[in-house]
Amino acid sequence: MKEQLYVIKIGGNVLDNPAALEQFLADFSALPYKKILVHGGGKAATALLPRLGIEPKMINGRRITDEATLDVVTMVYAGLISKTVTAKLQALGCNAIGLSGADGNFIRGTKRPVKEIDYGFAGDLDERSVDADGVSRLIEAVFTPVFSAITHNGNGQLLNTNADTIASALAVALSAAYETHLVYCFEKKGVLQDVDDDASLIAEIRAGELASLTEKGIIAGGMLPKLHNAFSAIEKGVKQVTIGHAADLRNLGQHIPFGTTLTA
Amino acid sequence: MKEQLYVIKIGGNVLDNPAALEQFLADFSALPYKKILVHGGGKAATALLPRLGIEPKMINGRRITDEATLDVVTMVYAGLISKTVTAKLQALGCNAIGLSGADGNFIRGTKRPVKEIDYGFAGDLDERSVDADGVSRLIEAVFTPVFSAITHNGNGQLLNTNADTIASALAVALSAAYETHLVYCFEKKGVLQDVDDDASLIAEIRAGELASLTEKGIIAGGMLPKLHNAFSAIEKGVKQVTIGHAADLRNLGQHIPFGTTLTA
Repeated sequence: MKEQLYVIKIGGNVLDNPAALEQFLADFSALPYKKILVHGGGKAATALLPRLGIEPKMINGRRITDEATLDVVTMVYAGLISKTVTAKLQALGCNAIGLSGADGNFIRGTKRPVKEIDYGFAGDLDERSVDADGVSRLIEAVFTPVFSAITHNGNGQLLNTNADTIASALAVALSAAYETHLVYCFEKKGVLQDVDDDASLIAEIRAGELASLTEKGIIAGGMLPKLHNAFSAIEKGVKQVTIGHAADLRNLGQHIPFGTTLTA
Repeated sequence: MKEQLYVIKIGGNVLDNPAALEQFLADFSALPYKKILVHGGGKAATALLPRLGIEPKMINGRRITDEATLDVVTMVYAGLISKTVTAKLQALGCNAIGLSGADGNFIRGTKRPVKEIDYGFAGDLDERSVDADGVSRLIEAVFTPVFSAITHNGNGQLLNTNADTIASALAVALSAAYETHLVYCFEKKGVLQDVDDDASLIAEIRAGELASLTEKGIIAGGMLPKLHNAFSAIEKGVKQVTIGHAADLRNLGQHIPFGTTLTA
């Protein structure tokens, strides 16, 4: 039987809240599994841009990464946040090592092709992007990788890359060597039938149920692409995807319900 | 016989000059030894501070690192420079991994005690600061560590730490497992009798000769503390220290003279 590996992604709602971050990192450290943390950038990068005279540009919720913006997100994600989180995890006894995809050539992206929109130095990932052997070597050398949302193209160019996508690519690539569990922590209890009612949490969705839940209008809106990506990861080898609130991470593996569990 | 390991430090004069940096990284990549790169920050951090409304504060050439300044040097050293250098090395086929001392708990400093001057979040290192086993594990897992001038105190606090000191501490700590060579690359050919005349290079200095060279006034000024630190590293196990010009690194190990060699 393969050993379990948890790939856990946190977003800005945790990073931007010092108390929530402390609690999350304590819970993450305490998880008795091999694990990888993936983090985005939160509001820090967006706040820094105008202070440097750079106008943050977003289209459809996605950042347009020109050269100056790339420097700033690299500084914030791979520098300040990566090292702050790593130092805090080390203080908690977790042997974290803060990485970008350029480090160890672990995650190699491609610059997003320019179609209607030029996203600039935005990275896309595919099946071959992650060096699973390299990341495994690091994990087996008893380190806990902490990945920021920066990758590279292998030719010296850094790329701003969606953290959800990085987490999914890591979990898929490492599923050959480990039984991988992909966990998305966000600001809701999980997939809710009514987004304003935590009690409406859907505890489990099987791949075969998604179409019917969508048809009945039980799942809609921004959650749909997330679920499609999650089930795609499961199709490619990930054992289980969980979408839940960062504050509930401590329930993971404790036989206490945690978020929405997606399985094949 | 122990395997050779080169610990090579570059300063701002290389980092601030794109052509010099490309050349240096190509030469570094080509070195057929196990190796570690240590880099400072160059002018980028100092330039960024006033753009963020933070006044750079230096006393006796040393930066005073308040909290806001620490965030900026962490962003620049451990973020922008670390990842830019790492991506460039990867493009050159060198399996670089950009690290701070917090990563893997590799280098643990202590906040400099406040005496006449409060240097803020400045880190000092001692004999026990480097986890030589951890760094060795990384090297033996075929990675080339690239250390920025940021360490931590083990309790979650990042510390701005002199890059020369980090290079020396790494070389000393790793001398138990490797035959370590410490190389300081700077903007001069090496130790010069006349700082304006490259032809006055002193090719070799043995520990026993330093006192006499100083007495005769052949070595003076800013070079003296550098030499004392270098000979101290040799006393603690480093095989050889070289002080030379970054552009001459390609001569290393080629039986072509390179800088000033310091030995026991």
